[in-house]
Amino acid sequence: MDTLEQTVTNNSIIPNNVNQVNNVGIDPRDIGTPDNWVPRHPELVRLTGKHPFNAEAPLSLLMDQGFITPNSLHYVRNHGPVPKLQWETHRLTVNGLPYKEFPVTLCCAGNRRKEQNMIKQTKGFNWGAAATSCAIWKGVPLSHILKLAGVVDHKTDKPRYVCFAGCDKLPNGYYGTSLPLEWAMNDANDVILAYGMNGERLPPDHGYPLRVIIPGCIGGRMVKWLESISVSDKESDSYYHYFDNRVLPPEYDAERANKEKAWYNPDYIINKLNINSAITSPAHNERIPLSSFVSTKEYTIKGYAYTGGGQKVTRVEVSLDGGNTWLLAKLTQPELEHPAVLKRGINPIPRFWCWSFWSLSVPLYSFIRCEEISVRAWDSTHNTQPRSPTWNIMGMMNNCHFRVKVNTANQGKEFFLEFTHPTQPGNNPGGWMVKSEPPKAVKAPEPSISARTFTLKQVEKHNTEKDCLEAILINAGKDVTEEFNAIHSSKARSRLSNFYIGDLSDKSQPKL
Amino acid sequence: MDTLEQTVTNNSIIPNNVNQVNNVGIDPRDIGTPDNWVPRHPELVRLTGKHPFNAEAPLSLLMDQGFITPNSLHYVRNHGPVPKLQWETHRLTVNGLPYKEFPVTLCCAGNRRKEQNMIKQTKGFNWGAAATSCAIWKGVPLSHILKLAGVVDHKTDKPRYVCFAGCDKLPNGYYGTSLPLEWAMNDANDVILAYGMNGERLPPDHGYPLRVIIPGCIGGRMVKWLESISVSDKESDSYYHYFDNRVLPPEYDAERANKEKAWYNPDYIINKLNINSAITSPAHNERIPLSSFVSTKEYTIKGYAYTGGGQKVTRVEVSLDGGNTWLLAKLTQPELEHPAVLKRGINPIPRFWCWSFWSLSVPLYSFIRCEEISVRAWDSTHNTQPRSPTWNIMGMMNNCHFRVKVNTANQGKEFFLEFTHPTQPGNNPGGWMVKSEPPKAVKAPEPSISARTFTLKQVEKHNTEKDCLEAILINAGKDVTEEFNAIHSSKARSRLSNFYIGDLSDKSQPKL
Repeated sequence: MDTLEQTVTNNSIIPNNVNQVNNVGIDPRDIGTPDNWVPRHPELVRLTGKHPFNAEAPLSLLMDQGFITPNSLHYVRNHGPVPKLQWETHRLTVNGLPYKEFPVTLCCAGNRRKEQNMIKQTKGFNWGAAATSCAIWKGVPLSHILKLAGVVDHKTDKPRYVCFAGCDKLPNGYYGTSLPLEWAMNDANDVILAYGMNGERLPPDHGYPLRVIIPGCIGGRMVKWLESISVSDKESDSYYHYFDNRVLPPEYDAERANKEKAWYNPDYIINKLNINSAITSPAHNERIPLSSFVSTKEYTIKGYAYTGGGQKVTRVEVSLDGGNTWLLAKLTQPELEHPAVLKRGINPIPRFWCWSFWSLSVPLYSFIRCEEISVRAWDSTHNTQPRSPTWNIMGMMNNCHFRVKVNTANQGKEFFLEFTHPTQPGNNPGGWMVKSEPPKAVKAPEPSISARTFTLKQVEKHNTEKDCLEAILINAGKDVTEEFNAIHSSKARSRLSNFYIGDLSDKSQPKL
Repeated sequence: MDTLEQTVTNNSIIPNNVNQVNNVGIDPRDIGTPDNWVPRHPELVRLTGKHPFNAEAPLSLLMDQGFITPNSLHYVRNHGPVPKLQWETHRLTVNGLPYKEFPVTLCCAGNRRKEQNMIKQTKGFNWGAAATSCAIWKGVPLSHILKLAGVVDHKTDKPRYVCFAGCDKLPNGYYGTSLPLEWAMNDANDVILAYGMNGERLPPDHGYPLRVIIPGCIGGRMVKWLESISVSDKESDSYYHYFDNRVLPPEYDAERANKEKAWYNPDYIINKLNINSAITSPAHNERIPLSSFVSTKEYTIKGYAYTGGGQKVTRVEVSLDGGNTWLLAKLTQPELEHPAVLKRGINPIPRFWCWSFWSLSVPLYSFIRCEEISVRAWDSTHNTQPRSPTWNIMGMMNNCHFRVKVNTANQGKEFFLEFTHPTQPGNNPGGWMVKSEPPKAVKAPEPSISARTFTLKQVEKHNTEKDCLEAILINAGKDVTEEFNAIHSSKARSRLSNFYIGDLSDKSQPKL
């Protein structure tokens, strides 16, 4: 039993250092946006300009935190502004209900999407490999709430669903989605309505005061700022249930998908995570001076791996020869030893809800003639990752081998081996993957017709609802080059010239 | 409710033509073996010599049967002789119990193993791509029997298991294995004790009078000739539970596995099937005369796909350019329309227990410059098949892209395109995969010392238990070249010279 008050007191299963990473305050970038009241960590990499807030931690900083990610560094996926709710007045009361508290690794289905965007721009923004984090979530079992409401999971002729609706207001209505009822009603699946995260009340960016946590599934099903739950023989009617979190076959572009209504094909929905892994050491741009090479010296390659549906990551392998041969890495599953997991006891069939860490120590000289370090993981269904990415219009579920290139470089007389990751998150430059389809510059190709030059002062006057659609009002009157590039396809870019009226004279440099 | 008598009468959900494929009688190859009473289809490809009986249908013949495989063509995996039991006197009575009857595709975990054996000999024999078949199984829900026995699936501190033991007697004791209790107790998983197959009593090769059927899992867990069931906090103690049906990392040979007790590592057990697919049309050695090429003509590439754990095969793709681009195939799931499935109604979360068929019609001219046709499938966890096989000591769970080579050939003046599969089952020759490690011939390298020549007549006298170990008694006094080659590793072959005493003068040609 638990009360909301208790959730704010720290207890033994939450490590003391969690949530005490840095002073987290209001970020200057949030001033002038509806999120100007949400404290945020300054080092989070923003992937969609300043608003809405979608961010991942720098990969190395994420790994430095270990198994449990502090709230302020947990990846954030918001579709719009954070609803400004009051813990005190929000209606749902959780006093006296049973609760579960245990670690869960959340993963955005778009984790590692930038690798797909380098092949061809998808409809999604540039997640790097850190759209995954692990926290200790605390909440009421959903099955308990449903049973209180009289829901019985008896066999019916038709499948039934639990539909979740958030109270966020977005361009296409509320954010919502649904889950098969049977999955929600099976206690072993640990679906909870969470109000606590790492021993604190749920922070605004993570869906306060109440969100859904569905271990083993993609983050996109775990509705934040939860407003209503209903059980139905129909799936959620939210726009985002159909037009987000789907994997379409690679031959579908948006046009064909719309024409053939492929978004409604039940085969293309994503629920459970697939097997995935990434290399975190060596980090991007990490260097090893050749002068430090001694035959006895070792280097420890490290990374994470995760899978879905409660399956276990059973094996991680590293290749130093382009995938011809594979070396068995050491695999650690901190979940198995975590006090929160030990406290609740073991399931008859254990479920695995958290990431695993892996490491492999190799002699430093292994890198001298190595062109690439790659990693692949296997899970208890004996599935593994494919070698190459399969592009899809939403850029979802990318789980190909994570490949880090090894190059030589010099600085003056000193030679190094230098490691390069496939991409860097957001619009950050770097990475060995090169965009095969370079984005067209955000200006008209021909400065013809009635082209003029505007000063920023002139632009700043156009910042009211009369000047633009409501959805982009917060950016009105500003230089939005970065925001525009972060989320628009090359097709959208090519249509810009129709609206071209002139150039900005005192344009600030893109903040790369 | 059902009685055994009813199981032998055909009913509407069993297609009439099933089980009426050919006259199935005693195969001459079974004479002189303990199986000399078991009727068998003459066209089954025997993979381990004449005994024990392990066989798959020719891939094209299997596909010709459609969704449901007739009993006589269903793949068979036997570890030893078929126990000679009596329906009339066998103790377990199933009269009056509830039953389920529905189609399930069984797959041996060794399906497609020969592709691994071409890389390096594993400890397993040469399954082709037809170690999978689909039948309508009928039986009592295991959960019902367990509940009758007082088993309750409450949460315990330790995982619990259902252990199955068969009544077959094998060199290392009884064949047995176990399953987590929770999986068995969840009715939605459809675990049954089966006594009917395609409307007939369970045939001897398929485990009569009673076997376990565990949909979505590997065939190796579905104990045949079932003698006992027990619930325990320990896994099965059968030798075969640990030393069979495991996937070890590729760097493990048998010696290292034994030394490090890797067989007991719970991460390496196989239960659920992984995602897999194969091309069945074009068949191996199929030819298309170039003279038949007309620009309007199409060819339909076809095959099967399956996955495990009740997941659905959601997408199958074919590549004609070595995996650079992929074409979406048409996917049919006859399970969804099958009368047996319609009769029982839909689960709240549908489970998929059967193979899917896929097809893709391409213009015939697509093959002119095509070197290879490859296929890969995806399932609802969004996992797919890896491009290349990963060798493991047991040769299990091979699920790489199935690749058919396209070559040109001529016969007189006529030119053809000719298709070549990776391998042919058993010791049958053919296939583009070439053994990288050719088997050493079964004779001593140097005909030195006291080498003699024996006639077959002389050998035939040595056919009693005094002449050999019991396990090979049925082959004593015979030319066993084929039997030996089918199941021995190159290491075993290399040790043969220690036992070399001479050559056989009137040695029959290997029956290839």
